[in-house]
Order: sequence, then structure tokens, then C-alpha cells
Amino acid sequence: MVTANVSPTPDPLVTDLFASLPTDRIVTDADLVAPYEHDVADWVPHGNAAAVVWPCSTAEVAAVVAACARHGRPVVVRGAGSGISGGANAVDRCVVLSTERMREVVEINADERLAVVQPGVLNDDLRAAAAAQGLWYPPDPASASWSTIGGNVATNAGGLCCVKYGVTRDYVLALEVVMAAGDVVRMGRRTAKGVAGYDLVGLMVGSEGTLGVITEATVRLRPLRTSRPRTVVGFFDDLAAAGDAVSRVNARGIQPAAFELIDRFCLQAVNKWKNAGLPEDTAALLLAQTDIPEPGALDEAEAIHAEFVAAGAGEAMMSTDPVEAEALFDARRLSGPALLQLGHEILIEDVCLPRTHLAEMIRRIEQIAQRHATFIATMAHAGDGNLHPVILTPPGDEDARRRAQAAFEHIIDAALALGGTITGEHGVGLLKLPGMRRELGPQVIAMQRAVKAALDPQGILNPGKLVG
Amino acid sequence: MVTANVSPTPDPLVTDLFASLPTDRIVTDADLVAPYEHDVADWVPHGNAAAVVWPCSTAEVAAVVAACARHGRPVVVRGAGSGISGGANAVDRCVVLSTERMREVVEINADERLAVVQPGVLNDDLRAAAAAQGLWYPPDPASASWSTIGGNVATNAGGLCCVKYGVTRDYVLALEVVMAAGDVVRMGRRTAKGVAGYDLVGLMVGSEGTLGVITEATVRLRPLRTSRPRTVVGFFDDLAAAGDAVSRVNARGIQPAAFELIDRFCLQAVNKWKNAGLPEDTAALLLAQTDIPEPGALDEAEAIHAEFVAAGAGEAMMSTDPVEAEALFDARRLSGPALLQLGHEILIEDVCLPRTHLAEMIRRIEQIAQRHATFIATMAHAGDGNLHPVILTPPGDEDARRRAQAAFEHIIDAALALGGTITGEHGVGLLKLPGMRRELGPQVIAMQRAVKAALDPQGILNPGKLVG
Repeated sequence: MVTANVSPTPDPLVTDLFASLPTDRIVTDADLVAPYEHDVADWVPHGNAAAVVWPCSTAEVAAVVAACARHGRPVVVRGAGSGISGGANAVDRCVVLSTERMREVVEINADERLAVVQPGVLNDDLRAAAAAQGLWYPPDPASASWSTIGGNVATNAGGLCCVKYGVTRDYVLALEVVMAAGDVVRMGRRTAKGVAGYDLVGLMVGSEGTLGVITEATVRLRPLRTSRPRTVVGFFDDLAAAGDAVSRVNARGIQPAAFELIDRFCLQAVNKWKNAGLPEDTAALLLAQTDIPEPGALDEAEAIHAEFVAAGAGEAMMSTDPVEAEALFDARRLSGPALLQLGHEILIEDVCLPRTHLAEMIRRIEQIAQRHATFIATMAHAGDGNLHPVILTPPGDEDARRRAQAAFEHIIDAALALGGTITGEHGVGLLKLPGMRRELGPQVIAMQRAVKAALDPQGILNPGKLVG
Repeated sequence: MVTANVSPTPDPLVTDLFASLPTDRIVTDADLVAPYEHDVADWVPHGNAAAVVWPCSTAEVAAVVAACARHGRPVVVRGAGSGISGGANAVDRCVVLSTERMREVVEINADERLAVVQPGVLNDDLRAAAAAQGLWYPPDPASASWSTIGGNVATNAGGLCCVKYGVTRDYVLALEVVMAAGDVVRMGRRTAKGVAGYDLVGLMVGSEGTLGVITEATVRLRPLRTSRPRTVVGFFDDLAAAGDAVSRVNARGIQPAAFELIDRFCLQAVNKWKNAGLPEDTAALLLAQTDIPEPGALDEAEAIHAEFVAAGAGEAMMSTDPVEAEALFDARRLSGPALLQLGHEILIEDVCLPRTHLAEMIRRIEQIAQRHATFIATMAHAGDGNLHPVILTPPGDEDARRRAQAAFEHIIDAALALGGTITGEHGVGLLKLPGMRRELGPQVIAMQRAVKAALDPQGILNPGKLVG
């Protein structure tokens, strides 16, 4: 249709959205849309979204997806935007669907030990609601106070506790999902076990918004832990010695409830940001916590302490002071944000190794940093073999960027050579697509694409992510 | 091609199989094929197989599947044939692929706490191989001494320990699978965590041979339990009171390592078969075991004992005698086979209820038995809410069969009405297809079929099972 008016042709999808939803759910102004066009990942591109929508109900989510399906346009789901692989980055002409306004804890059922939540509920808020009834939701990504359950489910988030208590997938019993055509589907169960059909719930967990939009999650809870945890802290002059200590504890069959590593650079960054007074005269800090009942906890703590010493810890100590312990675990959780505060561009790795290769991987990372003259800070869910080397680059230094990129790829190759995976818990998004292709090979990639095509034949759900 | 010879036209697929495999791998004689045409399920039909093959390697499995794909003919995979839903039943003109000759424990890795096994390894044999290195493979279906790991993975088998330690899916890290075109694909990882791509391993677990043929499984192990378990036994004059006892223990947040129920009919059947001397003057026996370290175990056992008494147990006792305890758990494991020994036709249910509805479900089963004048024996993984009501019918009594079938359907409906699932651990196979359709609804069924069509476009892998 030709008109005399020179204003741009209205986007028919946007027109459709305004017809389908209350107007306060939609923003199209580029300045307001911009902050919703990317997550925390540097280094990966994002496109320009046509609109951001904040549906307040499953029906509204279904209306958004149905509108996108009618127009053949992409939908990119977004929780808190705390992802670090670009999984929630906008693609051109997409609608960004934010779950921020779906924050209801629908049910906490103490007898069945489960919770039902909307996707925008913060991890910490679910944790608090469960604790009020003597229950515990274990998956605890370092971002727990700002990331959402929907995002945690979409990325199968891990965390500190998962070394003993498992990852998000281990806790998801049922999901309500808006599928690619806009239809609302409930899958899963409220029972302890169930084998009726393929595990579609498990397939949705970790699918990064490429198979459907999660509008409700039913998650398993545990009884709240009542024992006072014991914490063992070890200071190591050498990162690889800390890796050896982890292997020694694992080899003894001890199962800490958290087992973390923080290197000197992370300690310095946290001190700089929070004036935390953490020791900086050590190459790495190991933190192990045990939560079994006494007297087993004391035995376990003593055994961990002995292995720290045997591996060459400069100093090692046990503590039952919860304030002291929490301060150290906070330092671990704050390491990522503290590195971001330094004003550098950062590339965050997430390699996960067979546990026995942790020390060797740490050695290789140090060699890679040297070879490429890059600055790499390392924190780790050490007990899981899950390392987060963080490559820092001064802003605007193109040569440093090239060296960082080379180091990033070499770390991935080293992890794969040692039998590891390129991503333990952060997800593939865009950042780890090339690495995933190397890890999985063409046949598995083809299977993944077949599954994607079966459930999203138009390819409108977060296109280009995870399955490429 | 017309010939003067009156012998039947050779089956081109069989000709192809003989050309592809050593001849001692193949049998086509109807008498020898017949025992491989069905599993333990009565009441469900099976077809006639063209051949049974016993491949000895992944390459031979691939050759069989490729031959079937070329001829567009079905492949039905079979472990020990111990399934009870007809999942391994032959379909007409299929090839039955038995994994019986793939029995190698490829690796037990104590440092990584994992095992790699071929699919025909018996569950108990994996357990023994792990124990020799101080490790433990928890999933323990009652059939553990005769069922295979391949079958356990294909059905996501549960068992006694899974109330505390999880089901088969929780232990499968990686799989080698021959896909529908005969290509060999490796998926999964050897690391504690990993999120590179969709969870194809989880999708394969429980897929009952409809998506691929598992040729190798990498499973997680735990350190062998060293504490001496405490067992609490309760005798109840009333089945529903036993159900109440289970709810009371659950409500207290206690997590037994096994929590089983056996009713009088099962006790009688085991006595008759094994002359076991079990008490028969009780409506039901509850068995709870705790395996945490002392003194916690004593506290837990005393709390369970107190709840048994509070729920109205006629008698309740605690024991640390492993021989006595094992005899009782053996009675639980032998209940199924003992009922089979009675010479009746049997229909085995596998409903799983939200735990708080266990007692109510037991009451409804008793009412259904009365209303349909059927004989129902019940055993249960009570702590999981997973009931196995077994409907017994005298052979040849057509009217009793009709009543049994009606009772079977009513039990399923009652379980669904209480928010349960039709199958906690036995799988869908053929027996539970109608119930699954009622449970999942058309949208989820459509999603399952889409996944099936994506990975097996010709529909040759165990057609007609699980997804219908």
C-alpha cells in the first residue's frame, strides 16, 4: 500500500502485539529496548530487537509466541539477563520476551517437598520461600541473588552445592511450556518417579529457549539442612598444588557439600571492589565444606585438612564459624562480578574436566596464559572439575583481544584433549558454539538439529543459539 | 523371479544378515525364535520375528540395524527379556536384536567413580565389579540378578535404593548408540557436569529401544556404603494403616535408603515358593532401612519405629542383623517372581502417586478389587509412592480376565485422579500405551511422536511401543 505519509511502515508484528496485549507490556523505543538486547557476555554479537515484551501470565506468553509464529519472527526469551554466553542476546527483528513480571511462587508443598514457581522468580526468593517451610532448593549458581529460576532451568544452572546435591536438571519435576506455535503444554509429573514417555522435561532443561518458553516450573525440594557445616580452608603457593589437593580429597571418596577454588587475581579483585581484606599473598585458596552430621563432619573435615597439607598447602585450617565461612564463600561468589568491575573486557571459560585431570588442566591454563601473554584469573567449582578461567583484556587493545581469543580457543582444545567438556554450567549460547561443534562432532550436532526442527519447524525460538 | 523350486522365497533381509555377520550370530528357526518374541508381560500381543541376532560388538549391531534400515524392517532390541510391559515384544517380520553376548565390563574407574559397560552386562555383575574396587552402582531393580544394564537404561529402571539414591537416569553419563540408519553415535560425557547441547543421553534413557540401540553405557558410581544399615520392620493389620505410616515418616523429613511394602498375598506366595517362613498373619509388612552413619542411624530408626507405632502397627521392631534384614528384602524382591509361580495370569500395575496420596490409593485399590471381584496382591516402593498392585487371574477364566482388565483400567484412572502417573519404573511398552495417552494428552503425545520421527524417520526402531 502506497501512502503520501513519510513515516516508516509500522511493523505488522508490533501492531499485532499491541492488539494482543495490554499496552504496558510492550516497549519498542530503541533506547529502552537496547539494555534488553544482550546478556553479560562480552565478545559475542547481538542484533536489534523490534520490541521487548513483559507478559504477566502464561496466556500472554502464548499470545506473544503465537504472534511471532504468525509473522515468522524470532522470539528470544530472557530472565534476568545474567547469562554469560550470549544465550539471551537479541537477533535482528526479534521480540525479546522478558519473564521479569512473572514472579509468583505459586506453591510450596512441604508434604510433597516440591515448589511450583513462575519463571521470573529469583533463585534466592525461591530459596527463601522454601526455607520458611523448613525446605531447601539446592541449585545455587553464584548469581543466585539476581538470576531467575526460568533462566536457571533454561541453562541447567549449576553452582556451589551441586558437587554434592546435583544441578538444576536433577530438581525439575514438571514444566509448563509455550511451544513454537503458541500452544501451552504441561509435561512431567509431581511424583518421585515416572517413565511415561520420553523425558521431555529433561530435554527442555538446558535448551536455552530454543525449544519453548518455560512459563512454570515444578521443582523438587529437600529438607533444610540443620547441621552446622564445617569449613576447611587451604592456602597454596602454587595453583597446581591446589588442583592436586582436590584430586587427593576426591580419591579418598570424600564428598564435600561445596569445594571451591579462588586464585590470587580473584582475591585481589574482590578486595579492590569490596575492601574485603582477603589474603593476597597466596596463589590460590581452596574452600571445602562438609555438611554431614557430627561426628562424621569432624572426621571428614580432618581428612580434608590432612590432604590439603599433604598436597603442600602453605597453611590450612578448619572452622565452624559460619560468619567467617560465609565471608569466604561470598568472596567466591563475588569473584565474577569483581572481575567485571575492573573495567576490562572479559572472556569467561567454563570448561569441566574429569576430576583427575584438574591439576593438569590448571597447569595447561598457566602455560597458555604465558604463551599468549594474556592475563587469566581462575575460580573453580573444583570438586566438580569445573574451571572458570577468566581472560581479561584492557578495553580497546586489539592485539590483546586477538591474544585472548587465541588463549580461549587453546583452553577449549586442552579441555577436550583431556576428555573434558567446553561448558560445565554456563551454557553454549553464542560464545561456545564453535567449541561445541568441536566437542560433539557432526552426528550429534545433526541429532540436535533434528530435535530442534521437530519441535520448532519454523525456527523462531532463539534462532542461532545452542544448535547454531 | 519364478523358479521351479517350491521352497519359500528366502527373506532378503535374512540373506543380508547372513552376508553381514558370522553365521553363529543368527537364528531363524521358528522354535528357537519363539522364546525371544516376548518378555514377561502377559496380556499383550506379540508378533512373529524373522530372526533373532546376537551381535558381539558395536560394529555388528550397526550392521544389523543398517540391514534393517535398507529393507525398511523393524528392529526390536532385547536385554534379558525381564521387562513386564511388553516393551521387548516382537512385531511381525522384525529382527529381535539380543544384547546377551555383549557382556563386557569395559572399565571401572575408581578415581573418576564411573564404569563403562556393554549393554548385556547384568545389573548384579556391574554391582559386583564396582564393589571389588570399593564402589557402588545404586540402581537396583528387583530383577537386578537377571536384568541387563542395557535394559535398565532403556526403561530407566528404578528399584529399592532409588527412594534415596535416584533412578537409572541419574547415573547415566554417556552412551554409545546405534541410530536408526545404522550409524554409531557417542553422546554425553565423563565429567561431573556438562551442558553442551540438548540432553540427548537423558532422552535415550527410558526410550525403550525406539530411538536407538544402546551399545555402551558410561555410568556414575558412588563410594561403597560402609555403615551397617539399620532396618525397621512394621506389621500392620490394615494396608491403609501401612500407607499412613509411610506418609508419617515422609512428613517428618526422614529419608530411608529403602522403604518397601509387601502385603499378605505376596508373603504367602514367597512362603509357598521358597518355604521362607514369613509371617502370614498380617495384612502388610513395611520395611525401612537407614544407612547414614551412627549415631544418626539410630535416631532415624527410632523415629521411623515411633511413626510405625503411631500409625497403628500391630508390631514393630528394629534390627541391625544383616542376615535377618536381607531375608526380608529378599522376600520383597522375590514377590514378583513368586506371584508368577502361582500359575495365574498376571497383570502388573506400576502406578506412582504423590507421596501424600499413597494411603488413599491403597484404599481405592482395595475397593476396586472388591467391586470387580478380582484378586489383587500389592507390593510397593512405598517411600516413592510407587505401587505394584498385581491382578491375578486363573488361567482360562475369560470372565475373570474381563474383570481384571476393568480393575486394571480403574486403578490407572484412580492414580491419575490423585495426580499420579501410570508408570513409575516399568515403562510403557505395549501394556501401558492406553494409560499413557490418558496421562499425557494429545499435545505431549504429538511432541513425543515428533521427536521419534526426527530420530527414526523410517519408524523401524521398536515400532508401536512407547509412542504408539
